[in-house]
Amino acid sequence: MSKAVEKLKIIPLGGVNEIGKNITVIEYMDDIIVIDCGLIFPEDEMLGIDVVIPDITYLLKNRDKVKSIVLTHGHEDHIGALPYVLRKINAPVYGTKLTLGLVENKLKEHDLKDINLNVVKAGQSIKIGKFKLEFIRTSHSIADSVAIAIHTPLGTILHTGDFKIDYTPIKDDVMDFHKFSELGKNGVLVMLADSTNVERPGYTMSESTVGQTFNDIFMSAKQRIIVATFASNIHRVQQIINAAVMFGRKVAVSGRSMVNVVNVSKELGYLDIPDGTLIDIKAIDKYPDNQIVVITTGSQGEPMSALSRLASSDHRKMELKPGDLVFISATPIPGNEKMVSKVINQLFKKGANVIYEALADVHVSGHACQEELKLMHCLVKPKYFIPVHGEFRHLKQHSELAQNLGMPKENIFIADKGSVIEFTKDGAGFGKSVQAGNILVDGLGVGDVGNIVLRDRKHLSEDGLIVVVVTINKENGQVLAGPDIISRGFVYVRESEDLMEESRSVVREVLIECEKNNITDWTTLKSNIKYALRNYLYEKIKRNPMILPIIMEV
Amino acid sequence: MSKAVEKLKIIPLGGVNEIGKNITVIEYMDDIIVIDCGLIFPEDEMLGIDVVIPDITYLLKNRDKVKSIVLTHGHEDHIGALPYVLRKINAPVYGTKLTLGLVENKLKEHDLKDINLNVVKAGQSIKIGKFKLEFIRTSHSIADSVAIAIHTPLGTILHTGDFKIDYTPIKDDVMDFHKFSELGKNGVLVMLADSTNVERPGYTMSESTVGQTFNDIFMSAKQRIIVATFASNIHRVQQIINAAVMFGRKVAVSGRSMVNVVNVSKELGYLDIPDGTLIDIKAIDKYPDNQIVVITTGSQGEPMSALSRLASSDHRKMELKPGDLVFISATPIPGNEKMVSKVINQLFKKGANVIYEALADVHVSGHACQEELKLMHCLVKPKYFIPVHGEFRHLKQHSELAQNLGMPKENIFIADKGSVIEFTKDGAGFGKSVQAGNILVDGLGVGDVGNIVLRDRKHLSEDGLIVVVVTINKENGQVLAGPDIISRGFVYVRESEDLMEESRSVVREVLIECEKNNITDWTTLKSNIKYALRNYLYEKIKRNPMILPIIMEV
Repeated sequence: MSKAVEKLKIIPLGGVNEIGKNITVIEYMDDIIVIDCGLIFPEDEMLGIDVVIPDITYLLKNRDKVKSIVLTHGHEDHIGALPYVLRKINAPVYGTKLTLGLVENKLKEHDLKDINLNVVKAGQSIKIGKFKLEFIRTSHSIADSVAIAIHTPLGTILHTGDFKIDYTPIKDDVMDFHKFSELGKNGVLVMLADSTNVERPGYTMSESTVGQTFNDIFMSAKQRIIVATFASNIHRVQQIINAAVMFGRKVAVSGRSMVNVVNVSKELGYLDIPDGTLIDIKAIDKYPDNQIVVITTGSQGEPMSALSRLASSDHRKMELKPGDLVFISATPIPGNEKMVSKVINQLFKKGANVIYEALADVHVSGHACQEELKLMHCLVKPKYFIPVHGEFRHLKQHSELAQNLGMPKENIFIADKGSVIEFTKDGAGFGKSVQAGNILVDGLGVGDVGNIVLRDRKHLSEDGLIVVVVTINKENGQVLAGPDIISRGFVYVRESEDLMEESRSVVREVLIECEKNNITDWTTLKSNIKYALRNYLYEKIKRNPMILPIIMEV
Repeated sequence: MSKAVEKLKIIPLGGVNEIGKNITVIEYMDDIIVIDCGLIFPEDEMLGIDVVIPDITYLLKNRDKVKSIVLTHGHEDHIGALPYVLRKINAPVYGTKLTLGLVENKLKEHDLKDINLNVVKAGQSIKIGKFKLEFIRTSHSIADSVAIAIHTPLGTILHTGDFKIDYTPIKDDVMDFHKFSELGKNGVLVMLADSTNVERPGYTMSESTVGQTFNDIFMSAKQRIIVATFASNIHRVQQIINAAVMFGRKVAVSGRSMVNVVNVSKELGYLDIPDGTLIDIKAIDKYPDNQIVVITTGSQGEPMSALSRLASSDHRKMELKPGDLVFISATPIPGNEKMVSKVINQLFKKGANVIYEALADVHVSGHACQEELKLMHCLVKPKYFIPVHGEFRHLKQHSELAQNLGMPKENIFIADKGSVIEFTKDGAGFGKSVQAGNILVDGLGVGDVGNIVLRDRKHLSEDGLIVVVVTINKENGQVLAGPDIISRGFVYVRESEDLMEESRSVVREVLIECEKNNITDWTTLKSNIKYALRNYLYEKIKRNPMILPIIMEV
């Protein structure tokens, strides 16, 4: 047997050419570790799909090599696919305390037991196979997030995770500049870095600046205050609680995921809540309006969320009052603008005062802007660079940024899902790509909805459906019953009786014509019906419903 | 007969609580004029709908009073519903030359003849019934737009139309400040004003600032330049042409609406294009790359537009080349962010350099920001105020802005579609509302798609459809054929044969059970099938397809 060339492989199975579904494979000889395991929410054209998870065929083929799954932080796009993946590969999972607290919740919901969860701390090192991993404190819009350095026999990989630079973070330590600096000094082979905000010049503001806005508003507010934000943004929640305590208000929590996260964070010590501050949401009416703050989900205008329910008087536990001050502490994620706007309009109509991004500094991002990225590049000074966590436009801009800092273009790898970037002692380059992509989850079905089903859903959604049923005599092909025509999502039938009657005539003519010509073969019969009816309807009303001819033989 | 109280009514039938579908009725005694007649594009949940037009029941009931339709400018949300309305009420139409040029195009497409179109000029006055109308020059993102003052026996109404304040407009005259000032001095009863940008502090920049960006970029570009923008923004197009001429480039035009608008504008004298500048798009390969500019539609990422086709190598007349400089001179309209991003990613992947909003000053708005609105309020000094052209949040903020300038809250009317604001000699107030709302247009069908059809389309789009067909003996209720099960948009059947087979068993059991219990009534039979199958499928796969049981009798 010839000796294999020593190779280190980095394979993003997701998280490139998309923002979401982060999962990166690090492979050296017989050892694989997986960094993050996220999901992404479906695109508009993925009708009826609940979530999208990465295709892990490559991991299943190399199941025996997979030594662990290592997590950078607890956001859905980094941990959301874990339950699906762990069902197929029960590898040990490593992450910080809060991250694993959120993972535990998720595993419970999916009824998954016997998962090997291992808490690590920022600053800690562990050995997994031939890798030595260091977890490094960063700042992000969720507490306890880390970057990960992976020391391999061929050099050090640094994966920044999602990060921003925050000199005045809430509760967490400041990012571990010294560790990044030390790594850079000792030499980093390759860096994978967050590209989300690479298009934004300057700096992302500190999380604590939002606290100032809270203080300003809480100080003068005389009514109830309702603050909507991301459940996972525990630092934001902490700042709301701080402001509430400062101005003598009780805090109630609304929305399933907010209740979950607050409970987990409180238990694990990530939230400081003075005794007597938290009250049950059902008890808020016992206090004067100026002593109440409600923290709620729904900052993205999600139709089933607590805030949307409040706006449409559909909340089971509380009722909006005119004068309530609603503070939306978030900016809409691209694609959610209209939903958020709808909620704002509804809240205003109900007489609430609404504070949102157009009117105040209600939110800061969790991702680094250009100047922060430059600092990271300059500290770490990697030899090679793989921009991740971005659409193509972001990866491309991040590549430009790195080049402007002096990195040679040929040392930068803009990867696609399934790209293999191989490192040997002599250099680096793209290897042969592996299978990767989207697995659609719809209800309990994982991967059973594909392009054909989606195409049909799209067709049905646009012009609806017409079913044509005929029963014919098996012996002589004579029509025994029908044709009956049933439509759904096409026109309001009661007001379009003529159209439906004429459609029936069109089908009848086809049947007569076929009988005349002795056409009894079903396929021809069906396609003739389809063809005639489609032409008739398009001519008549310029619509193109799905036509489903069904022939029953007796 | 008792003498009727002299009343002036203002009725927005659209354009309030929405951005789009602008149409306002002005009524005094036996005279009605309609200001604008626009459409709005469907919301996400209006599946399969092409456009949405206003419900004009009120106008049809008062058909004899309608003396004219008066247009402020040529955008779709102000003229798009004209073909539908004119089919029912053939009133004379008034508008500026460019506006009517665009209307003519539209009427031709809808095959509408014998429409009475009357060109007016900014600065001109006309009499219609008991009204005297003045057309007043404003600035906006389309040329030749006007505000309209309507002098009535009970006072003057000022409708600003869509406007911004631009001290250095392209080709058009500067806004007619003197006329607004004169109106204000003489007394304005009520103002209706554009609220689109009321949430933005400061000023909207001049259209000419974008020209500076063009010049900067054209100066150093060595490749082909492709600029995408709104077809109707003729001033933008003019600036692209100016830059092209300045730097020795020929100009080709791509996209149906861009070709249309450029032709109309050129003919009517709204575009200055030096001879020899325009070339056919098919001829661009005859010139060196640094002598070509292509102006194209598709700045909103519309999937069928010229730019999207170019990005996906589906353009019939040209091919994108690596190095092409693509300039997206627009910002995404809320809701279009993801489509625009998709096109940007595709263009980058094809090797183009893309300049878009994140990277340069590529666009300015056509609507007034807060300081401009304040100037308008201060010039016109109306007694009453009706904020229009905005969602509720905008109308509300515009009301606040007016109050901050000293207007009493009770003199401001935040209207809904169909609200009637009545003015008498003694004051003003809301009257009884009239019918108003959305009419959905799908293909040739106007108003035949309502809530039931949309609900079905939504249901079909989410989990697809299962058709169950059974043929039974009319006499004894025995099953003669089936049950057959056909699905679409539910699961990929070839990989789910077990599920489909078990579904058939479920239906078979229901049929046997019904036969046992002598249930032959169709409604019960169908609902039993539906119920059993729905429960089975939800239990099994957590999906809820539409179930359509069909029973044929022989």
